Amino acid sequence: MKKLINTAQSVVEDALSGMAAAHPSLRVRERVVYRASGPRAGKVGLVSGGGSGHEPLHAGFVGYGMLDAACPGEVFTSPVPDQIVEATRAVDGGAGVLHIVKNYTGDVLNFELAAELCDDVQVASVLVDDDVAVEDSLYTAGRRGTGATLFVEKVAGALAEQGAPLAEVARVAAEVDERSRSFGIALTSCTTPAAGKPTFELPDTQVELGIGIHGEPGRRRVPMASARELAAVAMEAVHGDLPLAGDLLVMVNGMGGTPLMELYVVFAEVEAFIRGKGARVSRSLVGNYVTSLDMQGFSVTVCRLDGELTRLWDAPVDTPGLRWGR
Amino acid sequence: MKKLINTAQSVVEDALSGMAAAHPSLRVRERVVYRASGPRAGKVGLVSGGGSGHEPLHAGFVGYGMLDAACPGEVFTSPVPDQIVEATRAVDGGAGVLHIVKNYTGDVLNFELAAELCDDVQVASVLVDDDVAVEDSLYTAGRRGTGATLFVEKVAGALAEQGAPLAEVARVAAEVDERSRSFGIALTSCTTPAAGKPTFELPDTQVELGIGIHGEPGRRRVPMASARELAAVAMEAVHGDLPLAGDLLVMVNGMGGTPLMELYVVFAEVEAFIRGKGARVSRSLVGNYVTSLDMQGFSVTVCRLDGELTRLWDAPVDTPGLRWGR
Repeated sequence: MKKLINTAQSVVEDALSGMAAAHPSLRVRERVVYRASGPRAGKVGLVSGGGSGHEPLHAGFVGYGMLDAACPGEVFTSPVPDQIVEATRAVDGGAGVLHIVKNYTGDVLNFELAAELCDDVQVASVLVDDDVAVEDSLYTAGRRGTGATLFVEKVAGALAEQGAPLAEVARVAAEVDERSRSFGIALTSCTTPAAGKPTFELPDTQVELGIGIHGEPGRRRVPMASARELAAVAMEAVHGDLPLAGDLLVMVNGMGGTPLMELYVVFAEVEAFIRGKGARVSRSLVGNYVTSLDMQGFSVTVCRLDGELTRLWDAPVDTPGLRWGR
Repeated sequence: MKKLINTAQSVVEDALSGMAAAHPSLRVRERVVYRASGPRAGKVGLVSGGGSGHEPLHAGFVGYGMLDAACPGEVFTSPVPDQIVEATRAVDGGAGVLHIVKNYTGDVLNFELAAELCDDVQVASVLVDDDVAVEDSLYTAGRRGTGATLFVEKVAGALAEQGAPLAEVARVAAEVDERSRSFGIALTSCTTPAAGKPTFELPDTQVELGIGIHGEPGRRRVPMASARELAAVAMEAVHGDLPLAGDLLVMVNGMGGTPLMELYVVFAEVEAFIRGKGARVSRSLVGNYVTSLDMQGFSVTVCRLDGELTRLWDAPVDTPGLRWGR
């Protein structure tokens, strides 16, 4: 294993130091990443979090128009309730706080516990479970939460910024999750710094369809195929679960080790597939947004837009990982 | 080799199709990527280009405040003069065109030839040669052009957007190059789609110091070391060539296969090194900007800022790869 780290034990701490140094708009305090500008009175606060290793998710999405705070756990490990309690109290501007939680058992339990401990703050919660690959998985009852987390954070963040009340922000956040589906394919395993060796073995001639963002098993393994064929597998899985129709927000996401050039090749195939179904890519993202350390591969996430969601997607955002309009 | 491509022959074409589909602000025509909005009368046009495989460089930097057109060659291969001629004529708004050329022999020759063929357009040229690692290299006489290309494109692009004349845009572009230095370190080789195997062999226990962005040999190989030690090697090389002082623009750039988490670990070390020299990180970028396909590793690029360069760096930019202020 060759990784740009000091020690496996300090990697999350060291990366957070780098984030703080690189982004004056962020403040890192006791394993929570906040907007340096602090909470805004009357605005619903947004808190998310989860294991590290998925950068820029979540800390890279703290800032105007998205999150107020992110709670990074150790690599592929849920944040502890204390972090979430601290973050929730700190970002409450009097209008309550929305927890955005990816559907992994540890995350769900720790966010729930934290919400109970914050009985002085009005807390609502949205569960993200967009991955159609498998119904139950290594760390999950039900479907896993993956790429749609970014969509939920962006859309709910825009609505909160506009002064909507907590119940409305929570409702729209849940609606984004309901309208979104994802599917991922791995070309290689990831390697966690602590383990020092690949999480799973995958032969040079095979890919894993329906991979999880921690390397959890997917649906099956098949021989390596062309970008066109792999994109079709992913899109058929999505389309089979939520028919592609109308205006879509589409993300082709890299798993961390895949070059941008290849992601654009995949995006061209995804776009052609969608056109072939009579639907339309209305908004898109291509890049590394919800990663799995150094894994090679991609995931595709699709959200069926309407006018309101499109306006909220287009609203200004200013975070290290996503920025437009200001 | 597992890559998300259709064929090695079509990878550049397919990736450009994906870029065009993902970014309505771009228009791709005969292997040139333009702003969809077309040239602006009276504005100096900016054209860059080079081999593909360094995405988002250069096509990802076409847009308001940066390039008017990019000419992508085949993977790690210079664009042909015809592409550059076409781009130069197309973006001329009557105020002339600046060619931004990385110092590789093929690029230099083909941009020079194109400039001669465009005798109806006033063309100036700036050569980027910021890599302190080696004096001559596999494809280069003198120093290689790497990360500073992004700085030159951003700063010159801002100045052109403000209506400065060609000579002034060219002068400031050259000044950015003079004030910038880079150094790269590879943990692994890259693999070109056409070759299908790693460009060079690097043992699991070693890294290559001073790597080129096409996998050209660097200064030497040493045993794998901590992020702190590797960052110090890179920064000593930069500092030994251009003493770190005052306000700096600093980019910690991933080579394509390195996760963002690790780049932040490196950035923390780079920032501490700079502080230790009594200088200051005034502006920064951390991410994959000038890549080498799937190579794991990083490069660091430093530019000594002054007031004018800082203002131009901060000016609005709206491209797929770099965006702020609008």
